[in-house]
Amino acid sequence: MATIRDVAKHAGVSVATVSRVINETGYVHEDTRKKVETAIKELHYTPNEVARSLYKRKSRLIGLLLPDIANPFFPELARGVEDEMQENDFRIIFGNSDEKSSKEQEYIQTFVQNNVVGMIASTNDPDTHAYRKLNIPVVFLDRTMDNRPSVYSDGYEGGRLAAQEIAARGSRNIAVIQGPERVRPAMDRFRGAAETLKDLDIAFQVIQSSSFGIAEAGVWAKEVFRKVPDTDGVIASNDIVAAAVLHEALRLGKKVPEDVQIIGFDDIPLSSLLTPPLTTIRQPAYEMGRAAARLLIQLIEKEALDNHTIQMPVTFTERDTTRKAEKND
Amino acid sequence: MATIRDVAKHAGVSVATVSRVINETGYVHEDTRKKVETAIKELHYTPNEVARSLYKRKSRLIGLLLPDIANPFFPELARGVEDEMQENDFRIIFGNSDEKSSKEQEYIQTFVQNNVVGMIASTNDPDTHAYRKLNIPVVFLDRTMDNRPSVYSDGYEGGRLAAQEIAARGSRNIAVIQGPERVRPAMDRFRGAAETLKDLDIAFQVIQSSSFGIAEAGVWAKEVFRKVPDTDGVIASNDIVAAAVLHEALRLGKKVPEDVQIIGFDDIPLSSLLTPPLTTIRQPAYEMGRAAARLLIQLIEKEALDNHTIQMPVTFTERDTTRKAEKND
Repeated sequence: MATIRDVAKHAGVSVATVSRVINETGYVHEDTRKKVETAIKELHYTPNEVARSLYKRKSRLIGLLLPDIANPFFPELARGVEDEMQENDFRIIFGNSDEKSSKEQEYIQTFVQNNVVGMIASTNDPDTHAYRKLNIPVVFLDRTMDNRPSVYSDGYEGGRLAAQEIAARGSRNIAVIQGPERVRPAMDRFRGAAETLKDLDIAFQVIQSSSFGIAEAGVWAKEVFRKVPDTDGVIASNDIVAAAVLHEALRLGKKVPEDVQIIGFDDIPLSSLLTPPLTTIRQPAYEMGRAAARLLIQLIEKEALDNHTIQMPVTFTERDTTRKAEKND
Repeated sequence: MATIRDVAKHAGVSVATVSRVINETGYVHEDTRKKVETAIKELHYTPNEVARSLYKRKSRLIGLLLPDIANPFFPELARGVEDEMQENDFRIIFGNSDEKSSKEQEYIQTFVQNNVVGMIASTNDPDTHAYRKLNIPVVFLDRTMDNRPSVYSDGYEGGRLAAQEIAARGSRNIAVIQGPERVRPAMDRFRGAAETLKDLDIAFQVIQSSSFGIAEAGVWAKEVFRKVPDTDGVIASNDIVAAAVLHEALRLGKKVPEDVQIIGFDDIPLSSLLTPPLTTIRQPAYEMGRAAARLLIQLIEKEALDNHTIQMPVTFTERDTTRKAEKND
């Protein structure tokens, strides 16, 4: 039977260092930690209960909670998380909360019961007790809260860009579809668009919506043209809703972008396959997933961090549901 | 401390019955089992190691393995599985195999380590040792193998329907996109289409494709019109590829359905939002997910089953990428 001294000798470090690695107390350089772990494996060292619970904690299993896998934005996020985690030898279990707090609580519990060493959550309630009481690191993804580790894109800037670009292309009677009130990035992008249109002194009307789902998207699309029949520009709450607006506009015999311009949000994979292809505000979903995974790994490995909130840039992605910009020179 | 006798008395059953429930040996009626479990809970009975391992086994956790969550067909399946499982108080952990055997093996291992009581797998390798050696029930979903518990739709009939309906609407120079060779339902639907077109003596050419992914869909779409520039009908391998074909046809200035008809496969939620909306062969994805969950629960609860392979019907879903059928009367 190998002892802790054998491990220390094999790894070329002190017993205290091995102990620090096993008990996760105090700083150990990443390279050193790996040497110790390799020695533990090679010598088949089983350091009693402490280590057993350590190994249990160190399941290298991560819980990933998504609000709606039927919305193509989230599988892209998930792929980013998964690829980064796999490269670092972590595995993922997913849960789909369906935007329901009860299901979210259940998944958090399931993750904990299965000894995840960290969690990435795309949630509307980052401040809930269920997260606060966890003693494992949690990174909030897309839907975030100040002062908690999080990765998100700049929703306000996205809304501002959408308003600025649709205005620069001549729309003067704009319909803005406001996403679900409980979804913070949806509210950020709405505020960005509304405040920019106000500043530009361009008329706009707001269409309230309560979901991003495909099933209801057609309802909001119809509402746009019922409430603002002569609109010449629609800023949609996301790409799914934009696809429904495009479909409805064409069904009503409107020309896109000649009669009405449309801008989406997200840049889901299918947006470029629409006809005309959808102009949208791109969020780097895959990269956001990767960044959240990297951040979580740093937290799990107790690395010193300069910053634990990461805001990713959004970009105006010009396709054919908008006209060419009017030159101002 | 409650004893097994207390539990039996409280539940109004024999000690032997309680033992059968605890040890999962022999038949116990569902109602009786519930009575015993309720008594165990109410009396806080902890029946030593046997029961502890029982409760561990009885995690009510299910592993769900999907090949590609970025393909909107699979989230629909997942939602069906999830809803049925939730109604029956089971929880799900997902894995995304990315169509890779190595990731699939890892997830199977992860599921087992986390004490899942059953597994639903959408896999290209149902016959692999990794499944054969499991001592928990597995239901194969969508991608199946004979003689194993499975839920799938009738791919051959789907292909046959697509060929028959596009022919009935006048296409005489058809391009059939053959899905990935390793995906059995893709091959079934291809055979159904090809054999039907042969029987009808209608000319067709085959475009090989190696994935269902959004990233590559545009490649197959371009290949269709490069290889068969004057095609008047395309039978696509799935809706994503059909969306790319529609996009490419319109880009080339072709009229759909006047110049070229297009039929997809799956009926993903976005298909009805395309312009023109996509005619397709519908698979009841959500219902397939529910059926797989029900079947797995029956296997977990050791219910007697008449049949453990369930084939679901496919339906021709007529929208606007096909012309009206020619009347033959």
